[in-house]
Amino acid sequence: MKKLINDPENVIADALKGIAASDKDVRVDFDNRVIYRAAPKADGKVAIISGGGSGHEPLHGGFVGVGMLDAACAGAVFTSPTPDQMLAATTTVDTGAGVLHIVKNYTGDVMNFEMAAELAADAGIEVSTVVVADDVAVQDSLYTAGRRGVGATVLLEKIVGAAAEEGSDLAAVTAVAQQVADNSRSMGMALTSCTVPSAGKPTFDLPEDEMEIGIGIHGEPGRHREPIADAHSIAEQLVAPILADLDFTGAPVIAMLNGMGGTPLIELYLMYGEVIELLEAAGVTVERNLVGNYITSLDMAGCSLTLLRADDDLLRLWDAPVRTAGLRWGL
Amino acid sequence: MKKLINDPENVIADALKGIAASDKDVRVDFDNRVIYRAAPKADGKVAIISGGGSGHEPLHGGFVGVGMLDAACAGAVFTSPTPDQMLAATTTVDTGAGVLHIVKNYTGDVMNFEMAAELAADAGIEVSTVVVADDVAVQDSLYTAGRRGVGATVLLEKIVGAAAEEGSDLAAVTAVAQQVADNSRSMGMALTSCTVPSAGKPTFDLPEDEMEIGIGIHGEPGRHREPIADAHSIAEQLVAPILADLDFTGAPVIAMLNGMGGTPLIELYLMYGEVIELLEAAGVTVERNLVGNYITSLDMAGCSLTLLRADDDLLRLWDAPVRTAGLRWGL
Repeated sequence: MKKLINDPENVIADALKGIAASDKDVRVDFDNRVIYRAAPKADGKVAIISGGGSGHEPLHGGFVGVGMLDAACAGAVFTSPTPDQMLAATTTVDTGAGVLHIVKNYTGDVMNFEMAAELAADAGIEVSTVVVADDVAVQDSLYTAGRRGVGATVLLEKIVGAAAEEGSDLAAVTAVAQQVADNSRSMGMALTSCTVPSAGKPTFDLPEDEMEIGIGIHGEPGRHREPIADAHSIAEQLVAPILADLDFTGAPVIAMLNGMGGTPLIELYLMYGEVIELLEAAGVTVERNLVGNYITSLDMAGCSLTLLRADDDLLRLWDAPVRTAGLRWGL
Repeated sequence: MKKLINDPENVIADALKGIAASDKDVRVDFDNRVIYRAAPKADGKVAIISGGGSGHEPLHGGFVGVGMLDAACAGAVFTSPTPDQMLAATTTVDTGAGVLHIVKNYTGDVMNFEMAAELAADAGIEVSTVVVADDVAVQDSLYTAGRRGVGATVLLEKIVGAAAEEGSDLAAVTAVAQQVADNSRSMGMALTSCTVPSAGKPTFDLPEDEMEIGIGIHGEPGRHREPIADAHSIAEQLVAPILADLDFTGAPVIAMLNGMGGTPLIELYLMYGEVIELLEAAGVTVERNLVGNYITSLDMAGCSLTLLRADDDLLRLWDAPVRTAGLRWGL
């Protein structure tokens, strides 16, 4: 296993140490493995928290900061955080205006966030929840009832963070979150497997001449395997199922071409060039985009495409200032 | 070869297409393979250009924009751009205030930028040059007389870009560039080789249980190979030779923990945590940092550390707004 780590069992604690040292705008609760904004909480602002298994960095911890999350709970690699972590985050960030939980649709995450929300309600904190389930690849999956939650989470955390920052109340913030979740679709692929540190070997075997289409962000099986094709053909296999699932014409679209962690930027730019040609030919107008590593799968080589059917208000929230380790502009 | 590409011979052209599509603030001259700012040039501003072999993205094309470069020349993978490309960039961006060439210390780059500067001088354009040679790993190398230019280039392009943006003249901008070059040191390491698309196979062989300390960004040999060690030991092997080469105490330091392209962010955060502990123990005060993929080596797994001995003025220029695909804040 070729990784820059110490003891495989301490990867999360060690990585949190680096996050705390590199981003002076956050503070890390090492006992609960929660990353918070360092600045005192703003009175009356709806708080936004998310979390999930680690191994998807910068998601979620890298998105804590002004204009995005108030806190993120870090689970073990590819493993849901516990309800206790989520409850600690929820009680700490609540200002009395309520807390939104952003949950990727995996059985453990959904169950634990539900439990945390109930415990928070018992403590008198109003919690609403949005479940992200944007992956069109498969209907049910290894860790999922229904679709998996993937790249839309990044776009949702940015947009909803902006809505909370400008003072929207919990009902309005939740409505924006649901709008983004309902209007986002993703599709991914992998050239290689990934290696969970504690396992020490690749999660699955993918022959040197094959790729997997429709892969999940934990290495869950996708739709099928086939011989490695050129970037243009791969782009077609990402774009087509997304456009078949939702009409992206007639509205401004936000696109994310995301790397899985082991793919360099030169290839992501190249893929974006192929994707945008196909989208333009299909009459889809991309008004904003991200190209880079935003929701990764450890060291997996591959990429995913996420499209969000936006409107002028979502674009405005997208453009609002954000200052986090993983996404930053205007501040 | 597992890569998201079409024809290996067209990787640069295809990637430039994606850069042009994703960043509306730049325009690409596809014939000359030069990336420019899209906005009209500001009268009287010193222009900053750089360039080099491709495969190091976001360097250099991803650093074109307000507060950083005016233009970047993209060579073939790991191959210097031609003097013609550099001359085209130079003549296009000059406003009459002169042009600074930022050159990484590789024989081909130095020679070609020199030739371009002479041709530009013949055309009446004042050009000054800074050569970056910050890599403490080896004195001479495969493509180098003297030290290789690596991570300091990123910090230099940011700081010098800010100096030009605030209206400094060519002499002043060049002096800042030289100050950054003189006060920066880097050291890198690799867990894996990288694969040049046109070659189709790894540049060198590195056994599954070995790493290379002091690697160059084109896979040039480093200082030695040894069995893979833990992150703490690797951090010691990056920090020690840098601190042995220049005194970084008693001044504010800017640090970059850079990924080589195939290493995920969770490992880079973890490495930064190890590095900062060693630096603090050595009495070095890091005031600003970058953690991420900024000067890569295709799909190589590994990392490098760059330290800049700064001062208040360099910190001020570092903090100035920048808006590029690869580095952005304040705008």
